[in-house]
Amino acid sequence: MSELIGNCLVAQSGGPTSVINASVAGVVSEALNNECIEEIYGGLNGIHGILKEELIDLAEESQQTIRGLRYTPASALGTCRFKLRRDVDYSRVLEVFEAHNIRFFFYAGGNDSQDTANKISKLAQERGFELRTIGIPKTVDNDLVTTDHCPGYGSVVKFICTTIREMSLDHEAMGQHDLVSILEVMGRNAGWIAAGASLAKGARENPDAAPHLIYLPEVPFTTEKYLDDVRRVLGRNRHCMVVVGEGLVDPDGNYVSTSSGATDAFGHAQLGGCGDFLQTTIEENLGIKARSAKLGIGQRAAAHCSSQADNDEAFLAGEAAVRAAVSGVTDKMVTLIRGDSDQYVCETGLASLEDIANGVKMLPEEWINEDGVSMNYQFFKYASPLIKGEVAVPYENGIPQFVQLSKNRVPKQLGDHQFE
Amino acid sequence: MSELIGNCLVAQSGGPTSVINASVAGVVSEALNNECIEEIYGGLNGIHGILKEELIDLAEESQQTIRGLRYTPASALGTCRFKLRRDVDYSRVLEVFEAHNIRFFFYAGGNDSQDTANKISKLAQERGFELRTIGIPKTVDNDLVTTDHCPGYGSVVKFICTTIREMSLDHEAMGQHDLVSILEVMGRNAGWIAAGASLAKGARENPDAAPHLIYLPEVPFTTEKYLDDVRRVLGRNRHCMVVVGEGLVDPDGNYVSTSSGATDAFGHAQLGGCGDFLQTTIEENLGIKARSAKLGIGQRAAAHCSSQADNDEAFLAGEAAVRAAVSGVTDKMVTLIRGDSDQYVCETGLASLEDIANGVKMLPEEWINEDGVSMNYQFFKYASPLIKGEVAVPYENGIPQFVQLSKNRVPKQLGDHQFE
Repeated sequence: MSELIGNCLVAQSGGPTSVINASVAGVVSEALNNECIEEIYGGLNGIHGILKEELIDLAEESQQTIRGLRYTPASALGTCRFKLRRDVDYSRVLEVFEAHNIRFFFYAGGNDSQDTANKISKLAQERGFELRTIGIPKTVDNDLVTTDHCPGYGSVVKFICTTIREMSLDHEAMGQHDLVSILEVMGRNAGWIAAGASLAKGARENPDAAPHLIYLPEVPFTTEKYLDDVRRVLGRNRHCMVVVGEGLVDPDGNYVSTSSGATDAFGHAQLGGCGDFLQTTIEENLGIKARSAKLGIGQRAAAHCSSQADNDEAFLAGEAAVRAAVSGVTDKMVTLIRGDSDQYVCETGLASLEDIANGVKMLPEEWINEDGVSMNYQFFKYASPLIKGEVAVPYENGIPQFVQLSKNRVPKQLGDHQFE
Repeated sequence: MSELIGNCLVAQSGGPTSVINASVAGVVSEALNNECIEEIYGGLNGIHGILKEELIDLAEESQQTIRGLRYTPASALGTCRFKLRRDVDYSRVLEVFEAHNIRFFFYAGGNDSQDTANKISKLAQERGFELRTIGIPKTVDNDLVTTDHCPGYGSVVKFICTTIREMSLDHEAMGQHDLVSILEVMGRNAGWIAAGASLAKGARENPDAAPHLIYLPEVPFTTEKYLDDVRRVLGRNRHCMVVVGEGLVDPDGNYVSTSSGATDAFGHAQLGGCGDFLQTTIEENLGIKARSAKLGIGQRAAAHCSSQADNDEAFLAGEAAVRAAVSGVTDKMVTLIRGDSDQYVCETGLASLEDIANGVKMLPEEWINEDGVSMNYQFFKYASPLIKGEVAVPYENGIPQFVQLSKNRVPKQLGDHQFE
């Protein structure tokens, strides 16, 4: 093991989650334990801020603030969806690293972010700049390969299941007439989040418990089957609760939201809103009352209803990233590994950044029941441990009190970067 | 005071809330203290179930269940939106009351429900059937007259403010480009709920804190002013968070959601969704990214994030209803009265059912700032105590465990009722 000594840098990328800040807290907390790490820097707004040399000193933040990151949603360091394209951009990242003696780089994000981290690391090796790069998994979409699951997923599912339990009580109470209620949730390419809603049914497969129908991007949608499905549920129940992933597609692969042909006042195709389409389809074809709701960004930021298991694992992933880097590992992402025992246990492992960058983990088809609108016991067994436990969020005057970093800037050493 | 002895009946009406079951718990708990109340019955599905003689024995429910009503959202007894129109319906209600010796009637609901309770009571007096009728206020809309505020309101506002805090952290983290985010909330006729969202700004008037713009049904909407408002916010901030009450109207009094002229695949006017309209308006006119979310029914059922103050007052209102009836009062609704002291104190009072039935309490215009899109300190002072405190909801396997009544039916004494 080489005796690398220098500063570390942690940054966040892509869409925020309820627990990505817990990973940063894990990095800071473990970095403090290692003497080979001198300064603990945070990069603002992901790689975009690093290009601009926008670094802050995380060791200067109060302990209270770092502890508060464990229950504060979204990306406290800021995030970006910026793609490094030009050689000059990659070079600039290394210049910034060199100027600030950054030898340990931790990047929390999804597969695009891990791809970025991998390319930076490879360039450093080419140039002979000693750097250890470790990715930290993060995505509500749960679609990273090589890891059993992703920090962020359990919390979004817990909030959605809570909402479904509450909404379905409301619908049952109103049960004087047939009612179809549609909840649109995130998940553009994979149905992990919509599938997670099935946990609201509880352990015992109760066909009468909400949600009654789950429409996944993996199962091509047809209006005929949808109407049949709803009619079947309404034959047993006065209300039918439908969950739909926003990336629902028809058999031709077109998004259902836009393939409806609906237009706005300006004649443009209505953006988003497959939930609205499912609502209108019921009203027009079955002539019964339908409602729809769209949780939007709130679902991935709902720290007030986040999963303790998820939060703990996010923190653990941050700690493990530092331990790996310090022990000489590079070009890996921390993975979550599920133990073999009946009792759920989660440990961390490591996988090549290269592998993660190029893969997308789809929802296994064999976990979807034959009806195409519900999940089987294998999915339940997989997902149910991930939503357990409640994170205590402090409230003041009735509103959650989240923390904000004071963001003390590290003095810039370089000139401005020229963006495209 | 007459020494009336007999059974009591409690029922729920109209749209559910997070805390209407707490009022039922208050009724049951106080009824047990009074010997003049022999049986404690619940009417299923409001007046509609009473017509069908669908009564349950609430004294047979376990103490655990009654305690669990204090954190269980929606109407555990079921509810209805049924309007008594025919003399034969009113007579039937009295027949049911007579058959089951119901002498104390408690009806939790909004102004339509209090109107129904009032008419039943008046008919009982005409017919010489001794009955004491007390209404219990309930509505997330907060629009009942004679009461300072309504149980249900504080909780919906607390959940919305929590959501805004969380969403706005997400938006700030994404602050690499301009973003307009729209949250559509309930409130068809009055802006109480949308106005409540202003509490998310916190005590100090911080113009940069979300929500930046609040569109109320009370303030006629024009696209021109809306675009100006958004441009002004984006001049200071990278993101602009907009809250809109679903009942937003244009200067001609038409709902903004349908006046947009948007049509669905079948050529019908798009139902609901003023949030979607505000989103599209930004994208089309300013060419920047906009998102919208619609909390739907979830917001009025979000017991997992309900207000302890609201919950306590809902319970208190149930208790007060019983105490009033037992002491000889009839034809009144329990009201909530705010003390004069600086420290918020809430007591119960009584107001005539007649007065409540005929009134709607509008949001005072003088609490809206001149800009038409924010609330002033008077509103803050009014609303902030109502969202305080957090209700502890028990979780099992990561999901809230709400209670269900076992609903032991009281044997029917009458034949079937003929509905229209």
